[in-house]
Amino acid sequence: EQAGLFSSQYGTQYGSTDRSCSMHDHQTNSNHNKQNCPTPTADHWVRADQEEEAIRRKLKYFFMSPCDKYHAKGRKPYKLILQLLKIVIVTVQLAFFGISNQVAVTFKEENTMTFKHLFLKDYDQSSDDSLAVYTQQDVYDHMFYTVEKYLTLPETTVGRYAYVYDIGVNGSALSLCQQYYKKGQIDPANDTFNIDPHIVTDCIGVNPLSVPNTQLTSSYKNFTLKFHKLINVTIQFQLKAINIQTIINNEIPDCYTFHITIVMDNKAHSGKVKIWLENQATIRECKDPSVSGHAESYTRVTFDVAVSLVCLLSLLLCGRSLLRGIMLQQEFVQYFKETLDRKVCWADRLEFINGWFILLIISDIFTITGSFIKIGIESKTMSSYDICAILLGTSTLLVWVGVIRYLTFFQKYNILIITLRAALPNVIRFCCCVAVIYLGFCFCGWIVLGPYHVKVK
Amino acid sequence: EQAGLFSSQYGTQYGSTDRSCSMHDHQTNSNHNKQNCPTPTADHWVRADQEEEAIRRKLKYFFMSPCDKYHAKGRKPYKLILQLLKIVIVTVQLAFFGISNQVAVTFKEENTMTFKHLFLKDYDQSSDDSLAVYTQQDVYDHMFYTVEKYLTLPETTVGRYAYVYDIGVNGSALSLCQQYYKKGQIDPANDTFNIDPHIVTDCIGVNPLSVPNTQLTSSYKNFTLKFHKLINVTIQFQLKAINIQTIINNEIPDCYTFHITIVMDNKAHSGKVKIWLENQATIRECKDPSVSGHAESYTRVTFDVAVSLVCLLSLLLCGRSLLRGIMLQQEFVQYFKETLDRKVCWADRLEFINGWFILLIISDIFTITGSFIKIGIESKTMSSYDICAILLGTSTLLVWVGVIRYLTFFQKYNILIITLRAALPNVIRFCCCVAVIYLGFCFCGWIVLGPYHVKVK
Amino acid sequence: EQAGLFSSQYGTQYGSTDRSCSMHDHQTNSNHNKQNCPTPTADHWVRADQEEEAIRRKLKYFFMSPCDKYHAKGRKPYKLILQLLKIVIVTVQLAFFGISNQVAVTFKEENTMTFKHLFLKDYDQSSDDSLAVYTQQDVYDHMFYTVEKYLTLPETTVGRYAYVYDIGVNGSALSLCQQYYKKGQIDPANDTFNIDPHIVTDCIGVNPLSVPNTQLTSSYKNFTLKFHKLINVTIQFQLKAINIQTIINNEIPDCYTFHITIVMDNKAHSGKVKIWLENQATIRECKDPSVSGHAESYTRVTFDVAVSLVCLLSLLLCGRSLLRGIMLQQEFVQYFKETLDRKVCWADRLEFINGWFILLIISDIFTITGSFIKIGIESKTMSSYDICAILLGTSTLLVWVGVIRYLTFFQKYNILIITLRAALPNVIRFCCCVAVIYLGFCFCGWIVLGPYHVKVK
Amino acid sequence: EQAGLFSSQYGTQYGSTDRSCSMHDHQTNSNHNKQNCPTPTADHWVRADQEEEAIRRKLKYFFMSPCDKYHAKGRKPYKLILQLLKIVIVTVQLAFFGISNQVAVTFKEENTMTFKHLFLKDYDQSSDDSLAVYTQQDVYDHMFYTVEKYLTLPETTVGRYAYVYDIGVNGSALSLCQQYYKKGQIDPANDTFNIDPHIVTDCIGVNPLSVPNTQLTSSYKNFTLKFHKLINVTIQFQLKAINIQTIINNEIPDCYTFHITIVMDNKAHSGKVKIWLENQATIRECKDPSVSGHAESYTRVTFDVAVSLVCLLSLLLCGRSLLRGIMLQQEFVQYFKETLDRKVCWADRLEFINGWFILLIISDIFTITGSFIKIGIESKTMSSYDICAILLGTSTLLVWVGVIRYLTFFQKYNILIITLRAALPNVIRFCCCVAVIYLGFCFCGWIVLGPYHVKVK
Repeated sequence: EQAGLFSSQYGTQYGSTDRSCSMHDHQTNSNHNKQNCPTPTADHWVRADQEEEAIRRKLKYFFMSPCDKYHAKGRKPYKLILQLLKIVIVTVQLAFFGISNQVAVTFKEENTMTFKHLFLKDYDQSSDDSLAVYTQQDVYDHMFYTVEKYLTLPETTVGRYAYVYDIGVNGSALSLCQQYYKKGQIDPANDTFNIDPHIVTDCIGVNPLSVPNTQLTSSYKNFTLKFHKLINVTIQFQLKAINIQTIINNEIPDCYTFHITIVMDNKAHSGKVKIWLENQATIRECKDPSVSGHAESYTRVTFDVAVSLVCLLSLLLCGRSLLRGIMLQQEFVQYFKETLDRKVCWADRLEFINGWFILLIISDIFTITGSFIKIGIESKTMSSYDICAILLGTSTLLVWVGVIRYLTFFQKYNILIITLRAALPNVIRFCCCVAVIYLGFCFCGWIVLGPYHVKVK
Repeated sequence: EQAGLFSSQYGTQYGSTDRSCSMHDHQTNSNHNKQNCPTPTADHWVRADQEEEAIRRKLKYFFMSPCDKYHAKGRKPYKLILQLLKIVIVTVQLAFFGISNQVAVTFKEENTMTFKHLFLKDYDQSSDDSLAVYTQQDVYDHMFYTVEKYLTLPETTVGRYAYVYDIGVNGSALSLCQQYYKKGQIDPANDTFNIDPHIVTDCIGVNPLSVPNTQLTSSYKNFTLKFHKLINVTIQFQLKAINIQTIINNEIPDCYTFHITIVMDNKAHSGKVKIWLENQATIRECKDPSVSGHAESYTRVTFDVAVSLVCLLSLLLCGRSLLRGIMLQQEFVQYFKETLDRKVCWADRLEFINGWFILLIISDIFTITGSFIKIGIESKTMSSYDICAILLGTSTLLVWVGVIRYLTFFQKYNILIITLRAALPNVIRFCCCVAVIYLGFCFCGWIVLGPYHVKVK
Repeated sequence: EQAGLFSSQYGTQYGSTDRSCSMHDHQTNSNHNKQNCPTPTADHWVRADQEEEAIRRKLKYFFMSPCDKYHAKGRKPYKLILQLLKIVIVTVQLAFFGISNQVAVTFKEENTMTFKHLFLKDYDQSSDDSLAVYTQQDVYDHMFYTVEKYLTLPETTVGRYAYVYDIGVNGSALSLCQQYYKKGQIDPANDTFNIDPHIVTDCIGVNPLSVPNTQLTSSYKNFTLKFHKLINVTIQFQLKAINIQTIINNEIPDCYTFHITIVMDNKAHSGKVKIWLENQATIRECKDPSVSGHAESYTRVTFDVAVSLVCLLSLLLCGRSLLRGIMLQQEFVQYFKETLDRKVCWADRLEFINGWFILLIISDIFTITGSFIKIGIESKTMSSYDICAILLGTSTLLVWVGVIRYLTFFQKYNILIITLRAALPNVIRFCCCVAVIYLGFCFCGWIVLGPYHVKVK
Repeated sequence: EQAGLFSSQYGTQYGSTDRSCSMHDHQTNSNHNKQNCPTPTADHWVRADQEEEAIRRKLKYFFMSPCDKYHAKGRKPYKLILQLLKIVIVTVQLAFFGISNQVAVTFKEENTMTFKHLFLKDYDQSSDDSLAVYTQQDVYDHMFYTVEKYLTLPETTVGRYAYVYDIGVNGSALSLCQQYYKKGQIDPANDTFNIDPHIVTDCIGVNPLSVPNTQLTSSYKNFTLKFHKLINVTIQFQLKAINIQTIINNEIPDCYTFHITIVMDNKAHSGKVKIWLENQATIRECKDPSVSGHAESYTRVTFDVAVSLVCLLSLLLCGRSLLRGIMLQQEFVQYFKETLDRKVCWADRLEFINGWFILLIISDIFTITGSFIKIGIESKTMSSYDICAILLGTSTLLVWVGVIRYLTFFQKYNILIITLRAALPNVIRFCCCVAVIYLGFCFCGWIVLGPYHVKVK
């Protein structure tokens, strides 16, 4: 029987839903919730049998899965095949980008590690974040060690670094600065102090030996620290390098500028001066790339363009399906209004908008944007690796989550997924209760226990 | 129908409770436990219909949730809004206090770390608790190292410490002591010993170089240890410091006195002398605080007072509700006694006392007390950070746990919470059984395995 | 009704047991399993009503819990109170013994640690088990370092150790030995070897400087190792010490002899010589204990004797109850045989033997034995700490597990415990299945993966 | 009744299976799925009663467990006893092999450890994989250190190693090579570079001092590295050794050749040169084994042959059972076709092929193959330890998993196993859904978070 088939089709698609209130109320065995929509009198139905049959067919076809459509009308599931293709190529594109991205990030991280070993005295990798000194002599030793190592860098380093000049104080290459309170008479013996919390910064510049301005080079030895009111000592300089490792991946090398800051932090005035090194890298296109035997490889860009086109096609098809859903909804509402003089409730209206299509559209937009940024990175006109990673990563995640939709086309999986969806609200509710108590404990624990234990911090 | 509504309201409020025995026994479909209370004859009810109706209305209104009260009588849920406001401001106050507290605790901990690096020879942070020496020469070396570092402290340290004089033996600044058994002739070769377990303490004082009493300064080199009966060597002195880091948070700096004790422990006489440093800090108000450009900021104190007032209001409102409950209970008991000549059982009486109000009252008292201590700390007349942390932390925890009460106003959450509450006794009972077996295993394991493994200790 | 009460009592005691087959089969509503025992004809019952009533009363009283007995006959639950008392005193005794035991074990462990630091070159506590050398010079250095440190021990050590003479080769104090294959011509260049796997041991003795036999002292420098066929080098000596820390606990110090063996292991011939130190301690009573002001404290021994007496009383009472059960069983079996001409099946017979009493009897025997050993240890005539620890620990574990019996006297706990007991067989069955697969994986994993990963070993 | 017994037997064997559709359809209380097979008319059955009875008996006997067969016909369960014997001997064989294998693997691993300690400067075992240098001088120091240690190996090492000559460049024993880009003008100061990515390898040979060609020995000090375009430095040599530890296990020693490669990797050009040592071992039979007093022990080989024979017997018996099943299936299908004119569906056909027998046959084949390889290893004609380990390990795993089959002969275990088997498909389905989402998160997380965190890499 027709009505039974439609009902079972509808039920299979949406599980044991009790939201649909208007469409089935002429069926005697309907156990749906009728409180929101008025029930029509039975005579409305007699004169509109054919129109009803037509809209019923349309609805039935609309809510069919691609497989059912193929069985019913022989329509090939082009859209389904396109989505399966998209999963493959989007994942491949992500993998390619991941490898490029890793080379760039690794180069920066290894250089940071190198700078720590070169410029920090007594640096030990295993206790990276606890480098500290406790005596005045040690502070001077660490400070001068860094400057000396900077001056002899070209002779010692295994890598190939270039100084950047004229960026420090007085046109020097390295700035050695101390910050202290304007006035800081502290006398713990008498429990008195007289502090002016305005901060004064006192800098001298140091130039490498290759620069003729030699009085700058040797003068740093006379730099005296005001320990009783000192806040911190900073050493700032820049180094340039070229990441030639990328030619293994057949990519053109990038040029890097490292902004290195070494901080000796006495802010806490607790007798402990913490020392750390910060390294900020900026990536630029090199001026005159020349790699012998390097044929310009357009294959990557071609692949990215192909991915964009596939996603554009998917975007258009999903958009069309969404539009069709909205149009069918309009027709359905119109029919109900004219023939039955009834309104269709919102729960029913939302059934026409397929959430999976919205997910796919978002994923497509992300992939297309990400692909264009990727093309820009590969042609060395952009270097925003992070944004591209987030866009491509998120879109791949959405595409994989979308695989669950295809699992619902199998009967046994559909039952499982509907069961999980039904159990979700109670699970979330339980988590809310637990979260509230957990939050309370967190606030309490942070204050009462927090400062005494380094792990709770 | 009135009775049905009341019953369902009552049932919703207290779930599938079988404690209520007196109020519903005139309903034919009652399935409650009637064993504790006598059943009245039916004719009592006829002549007291109006009185019954009045008390029934009162009861129904009393057990309504704030939302229901608003729907029923249009009474705005002022108390509910006050509690929601309280959650926010109590959490904000806790966060402010947490930041202040952390600065104080961090200053003490970093100074302890500094003292360990300065005064302990061969100190290694990663194996903090296992510093030990095994030879006589090493004990002397570590002992003299500490005293030397103490004497040269002003020239070496990065921080600003002041000696505290006249606190050791003979009016010295540093006390170097050894404790040993009065008699301790131990001869393992012959398996004989002759011990007098009374402990003798032998001390000498050391003064910094700045003090004219110079013979004290150099004499410590002649301090000889009686290794064969030695219990421990202690070095005690005090240092003063000022925590000027607090001016970053716009607070006035505190003055600290550190009581430092270095112990070389030979109590076990196992050839291993453990060495550790203890640091006890006392916080006092500085004598003559002078911070240039520091406007006295009353905002914090104002906020604390505001929190106290809100909590006081909440305290009064909750107290009033509790009182009303008790009064209604009296009236209800009176009515039962006079009209029906029956007693109300205790389970029913307790229903009138809302546990949530008691929780809120405790929380309010803690917050108000904590706020006053906090004002005292901020005006530098108190320094009991720990008590304040416990009071404010506990009150915040209680306020957050109280959020669960508001969740029970939602139908779906109420079912969940009632279910959890019903399952709790069996869970606790099961835990008791497990705990008994666990305790037995603990006692057994501690003795049989404990001493052989460092982790079970 | 009598029968109903008995039945419910029986049912409560043993849960939903279907083992009892003989006692209830005259009840019409019996749903028990009757397949094993023959059913008697009804006329047997008429003439034996009084006898039956008597035995039924006895049975009912026998299976009562102590509380029920008190309610029924007013008999005070002396045995229950005794058991509760036993839990307390057995736990206290275990705690006392635990503290004594820990002192002894800690003394041995700390001395082992001291010997490792004193006698092993380049010893690092954090990588205790990986001390190894790789060159011939290092083997000689480590070997001579140990002997030198042994010779200068009295001047260097913080502890008080005495040499033990005349225990090594040629009446020396220290034996320095090497073991090697009788013949060991190995020529990897030609892939040939000629080995006689009989082991030859070659030793020299070394005496401390205090011993006049001086040629022994210096000759060890000439000890030459045969590296190409060397199996291991061992240095063996003994040291004596006295654990005077125990006088803090008001106990008399013990005398210890440490048998120290340093092994340099070349068994694998892989170019890596592992080095480790073994320390075997023997505890003896000191010859002439003399602790000034030490009053002989009999309190501990008194307490141990009291514990023994309590346990003996408990043992007698539990034994009596067991005997009574067996006698009642005999009577019951006799009654069934004579009156009904039926046998009582084994399941029913076992009901008369209370497993808890057996558990208590075992626990009592352990405690009494352990207490006597403990008295021996305290009076310094025994030193078998380990056996005493196992006996007292196990008995305490059993006593605590016995607490579950008292929980079954509460109705709600009884249900829980019966439920758990019913679920146990299926859980065990499931664990068997998992264990079989796990065993297979273990055997497979040990061989296939084991040798390649240090953690699986 | 016959049919009832058969049905219950069949049901017990295969649980609540709904696959069997053809055999029970003449029973009125059959609730099986009949959609796949046509139902015959009832009159077919009348004339074929005897034939049906015969095949029913055969089927019943075929599906009996060994215990039932013993009870029914008194046939002793020889096959069952053989399998139980096989579990024991296969596990014993695996244990023997495991011990031999471990000796071989340990020898190789300890030698690798020794080489790292001997040839790598500043090698620290606890941070094995992070050895790196950062300055040009350090690279030279590490390089020359290795070569020097190689030249002085015979005098320093504790083990017994022999050089392998004529394997490096110019017939030398050690090859010291550097790889660099053909052209590598990098000028970070101007952001320009000119690279020819073709790799040039530049090597010199070094010979030990014992070889007369002395100019090779000293010339390595002049080896200059081209740091600005350097890719890596490699030092390659071979050493020979004999594992004489095996004579403890009464086995004949093996001869090993170690191919040692030390790599200083500058591929990333990040200023950090990573250093590691690779050790590849090849095992060969020694030429002229001579162990005094070593009686050729044939016991192991005998045991291996015995295991092979047992497994061959098991293989034959299981194969026979499988064949019988297939023949009975043919007969059954024939009977259905002729008598009832019906086809037997595939689900029923597969019931005749016992999966456990297939598992046992695979296990037997693995054991027999593994045993022959083991005999080869023990007679020193083979050294493929890995393949033998995988074969023997897998077969033991299968034999142990087969134990579950014997558990299904017990009624209670059978229920458990059938329940687990029924729950499996839904569990797998749920895991699929989770896996899809997990895969998506992995791809996303690898790209977005991966490069910034060392643990995700």
